[in-house]
Amino acid sequence: MAGGGAAASALSSPWRALLQRALDANAHLKHSTFFQLATVGGGGRPANRTVVFRGFQEHCDKIQINTDARSNKVGEIKEWPLGEICWYFTDSWEQFRISGIIDVIDGSSPDPAKLQQREKAWFASSVKSRSQYLGPCPGLPVANDDHVKDVHLDPSAGPVDAYCLLTLDPEKVDYVNLKSNQRLMFTRTKEGDESSDWMAEKVSP
Amino acid sequence: MAGGGAAASALSSPWRALLQRALDANAHLKHSTFFQLATVGGGGRPANRTVVFRGFQEHCDKIQINTDARSNKVGEIKEWPLGEICWYFTDSWEQFRISGIIDVIDGSSPDPAKLQQREKAWFASSVKSRSQYLGPCPGLPVANDDHVKDVHLDPSAGPVDAYCLLTLDPEKVDYVNLKSNQRLMFTRTKEGDESSDWMAEKVSP
Ligand SMILES: Cc1cc2nc3c(=O)[nH]c(=O)nc-3n(C[C@H](O)[C@H](O)[C@H](O)COP(=O)(O)O)c2cc1C
Ligand SMILES: Cc1cc2nc3c(=O)[nH]c(=O)nc-3n(C[C@H](O)[C@H](O)[C@H](O)COP(=O)(O)O)c2cc1C
Repeated sequence: MAGGGAAASALSSPWRALLQRALDANAHLKHSTFFQLATVGGGGRPANRTVVFRGFQEHCDKIQINTDARSNKVGEIKEWPLGEICWYFTDSWEQFRISGIIDVIDGSSPDPAKLQQREKAWFASSVKSRSQYLGPCPGLPVANDDHVKDVHLDPSAGPVDAYCLLTLDPEKVDYVNLKSNQRLMFTRTKEGDESSDWMAEKVSP
Repeated sequence: MAGGGAAASALSSPWRALLQRALDANAHLKHSTFFQLATVGGGGRPANRTVVFRGFQEHCDKIQINTDARSNKVGEIKEWPLGEICWYFTDSWEQFRISGIIDVIDGSSPDPAKLQQREKAWFASSVKSRSQYLGPCPGLPVANDDHVKDVHLDPSAGPVDAYCLLTLDPEKVDYVNLKSNQRLMFTRTKEGDESSDWMAEKVSP
């Protein structure tokens, strides 16, 4: 997974070594890179869905997620940018709850560096994944006789309008290991991703 | 799983037959009865954690979850009782997002019927599960030299103070099948759990 390899560096956030170990231990399972992202929608309604881990942004701890700019979550996150990831590793019995602020990076971003990240993440995903963003608007009714149109995407074409990159910047990580029955709470004390910017505490599961 | 068997009855909510089929198809996986429950905590912060499905409450669609009355979620849910479950079945590639209102049933409930449900759910879980509620308060720091005390629980003893039953009453179910690439949105139109109290619509994934 992109950015994963650098995770265990001595200087990086302390929970990343644990997460990298879990990713390695569960790598034989297709679903080990899926997690549930909770956000808050209109009227304070919690929303929760499975998404795919698309690696860390380079040189930091931000977690990348690909999504459709037309899906409900994008408008909801723009209104209220807090999220909590719940990532359970089914083979090693470890859970990571990662909370932080989510940045929505669609084609309208005024920041060239962000547009570049978005383009990079676009090309990092398969052509098949990219083609999904040419499909019908998620969540809208489909008529019974609708059949999926074959869409052709030029593999060298840049991100389409519907493609949106989300990045979650971790502020707290609640780690539980059900085999050892241990729980560690990591809290970011300073802006930054170095070991010294985080506090860790052993708490009761 | 308690209450599961009756799920596919012709009169029950239409999504329950799909859920029962998924439970059956994934029953060989220990984690098939685990799902992620999202709620909203203080300051509108989303919270998300893995919990165990403890079956449906008898004669209705309410989803039962056991928890510790001392855990953060209980206070949070009392303040803001909305929840969304995200339940992904890793073998059949099906996702159920189930949202609704959560009822917190601890020992202080004034309703004798609810206290009875709580007692029933207590005895339905293993003695080992029940013993966990005698352990230290979840989330509090543990000293490094703390070792887990052996607790003895009388198997015939009723629910302890820390035991709390949560029930989520579904109002909307968003079902996605990644194998067939189909998505169905079920919305409850009336109070009740019969087929006719729900509307189903095919929507784009
Ligand atoms: C295994 C699996 C992986 C998924 N991965 C993603 C993903 O990476 N990005 C995404 O936007 N939706 C993904 N989805 C779909 C979401 O769970 C959800 O149905 C969709 O994003 C609409 O969510 P929303 O209405 O909250 O915006 C995935 C679904 C499943 C079952
Ligand atoms: C596989 C697994 C199953 C779990 N099942 C439950 C459960 O059924 N009930 C529960 O309260 N916590 C359960 N937990 C622990 C929760 O995920 C969470 O750590 C704990 O309930 C504290 O959450 P809170 O601080 O939001 O209250 C489980 C954890 C894992 C990894």
